[in-house]
Amino acid sequence: MFEIPKNLPDANEFIQRLPFSKALNMRVDELAESRAIMSVPYDLLIIGNPATGVIHGGAVTALMDTCCGLAVLAHPDVNTPMATLNLKVDYMRPANPGQSITAEAECYNVTRSVAFVRATAYDEDKARPVATTHATFTLN
Amino acid sequence: MFEIPKNLPDANEFIQRLPFSKALNMRVDELAESRAIMSVPYDLLIIGNPATGVIHGGAVTALMDTCCGLAVLAHPDVNTPMATLNLKVDYMRPANPGQSITAEAECYNVTRSVAFVRATAYDEDKARPVATTHATFTLN
Amino acid sequence: MFEIPKNLPDANEFIQRLPFSKALNMRVDELAESRAIMSVPYDLLIIGNPATGVIHGGAVTALMDTCCGLAVLAHPDVNTPMATLNLKVDYMRPANPGQSITAEAECYNVTRSVAFVRATAYDEDKARPVATTHATFTLN
Amino acid sequence: MFEIPKNLPDANEFIQRLPFSKALNMRVDELAESRAIMSVPYDLLIIGNPATGVIHGGAVTALMDTCCGLAVLAHPDVNTPMATLNLKVDYMRPANPGQSITAEAECYNVTRSVAFVRATAYDEDKARPVATTHATFTLN
Repeated sequence: MFEIPKNLPDANEFIQRLPFSKALNMRVDELAESRAIMSVPYDLLIIGNPATGVIHGGAVTALMDTCCGLAVLAHPDVNTPMATLNLKVDYMRPANPGQSITAEAECYNVTRSVAFVRATAYDEDKARPVATTHATFTLN
Repeated sequence: MFEIPKNLPDANEFIQRLPFSKALNMRVDELAESRAIMSVPYDLLIIGNPATGVIHGGAVTALMDTCCGLAVLAHPDVNTPMATLNLKVDYMRPANPGQSITAEAECYNVTRSVAFVRATAYDEDKARPVATTHATFTLN
Repeated sequence: MFEIPKNLPDANEFIQRLPFSKALNMRVDELAESRAIMSVPYDLLIIGNPATGVIHGGAVTALMDTCCGLAVLAHPDVNTPMATLNLKVDYMRPANPGQSITAEAECYNVTRSVAFVRATAYDEDKARPVATTHATFTLN
Repeated sequence: MFEIPKNLPDANEFIQRLPFSKALNMRVDELAESRAIMSVPYDLLIIGNPATGVIHGGAVTALMDTCCGLAVLAHPDVNTPMATLNLKVDYMRPANPGQSITAEAECYNVTRSVAFVRATAYDEDKARPVATTHATFTLN
């Protein structure tokens, strides 16, 4: 049965059931109507460049993708399963080594069959985003 | 010092030094001028949906991103470090559970400061791609 | 009533009925299963930069978008109206002033509700593309 | 010589010198630091679907692309020529026939060689966007 997480503990339990999200230690920090904030701690596992300790862009993208999905589920008009149809990611700068990454996503539009979402990812220097994404999800 | 992997063993060693790539068990299967083929085995770690056993799209995207980067390094005109500037991923269907994922990338254009790459990912049913991507990398 | 152009004359008549396509003098050069080739002549109207005479990227994109739509209609599994859901365009170089622009599009995948298309645009120097696009269309 | 429009009249004169922008009757409505608002009136020329009178997506995209470029030029750190590197456009709904289209763009990040911009386009129903875009421009 398909269930939509209604509150923060539910959302965290939902995310923890997804093995890839769990492996990256993703956590849901905030959940509100059409919005979600999630983070991953800095971890050796997700380092992309061992010379610099910078996190792999793929880990940042996986976080934003998951956070976007949660924002879609948090939209009042969405009550069906959904799947990422596509996403475009722009990387603005390498994340600072040793810092956790936070993603904020907003589902800003929903049609009968498609949800539109945008997200921003940053490290502790919130003023300078690390990456942004524009994604669409198919509903049902 | 920046080194470009010149052959398949070098490329595999290069990929294995990247913790995130290693955690996903990424492997380089082929390396040619402007082209690379990489794969990840099916693994519990990268499951996105525990109910179906389908791999997380983020793992497919991380594989395509890495494979695109390798194709850029395999372009004859590239001899500097590079970083993903952006990528757009289209997901066509869920990957079949239990099957490895393969990505094929081609760096089809290089300007003074930007490399353009496209990639396709598929499972054992090669005729029906799982996802495609269009990416740009900044050079130097 | 919704009609799908079945041959080259029909496709040209179809395109000519669309005012924006007609204003840009778009022409269908080839039509095949899941594929279309279209072109626009060089014209003062579509110049983006008067100092160089280079065509506006928006005109190249409009051509690729239209050509992608025609390729979708030329897919054997498509028999409903469709609309562009999204497209990502990468611009590789300015088009040579004075030369017509040609776009080649291929609808490489169709699901129940989404068609996936890619296209390349070039001027007379076909070996060096001017732009590429990755697009999705919603069906029905 | 390369000149950056500093105020609204300059920006309108700048836009009017670009033949394609002029053909679409683009107008600059507001110009501020890192931001621009532009519009095009409804016009037979830019109709995409003669049966419905809906504007061609390519015209909306050309407006957003141009507006994004102006927002880049309005960023305090930009003082060189620039060109669109890529843009991803999501179309949310057809524009209402008979209404002008307005685009708002914000250049939200600039690195040494790349500017990042987002834009939203809407008709008179500003609460429901017609399209959004994420674009990058190469500087110099």
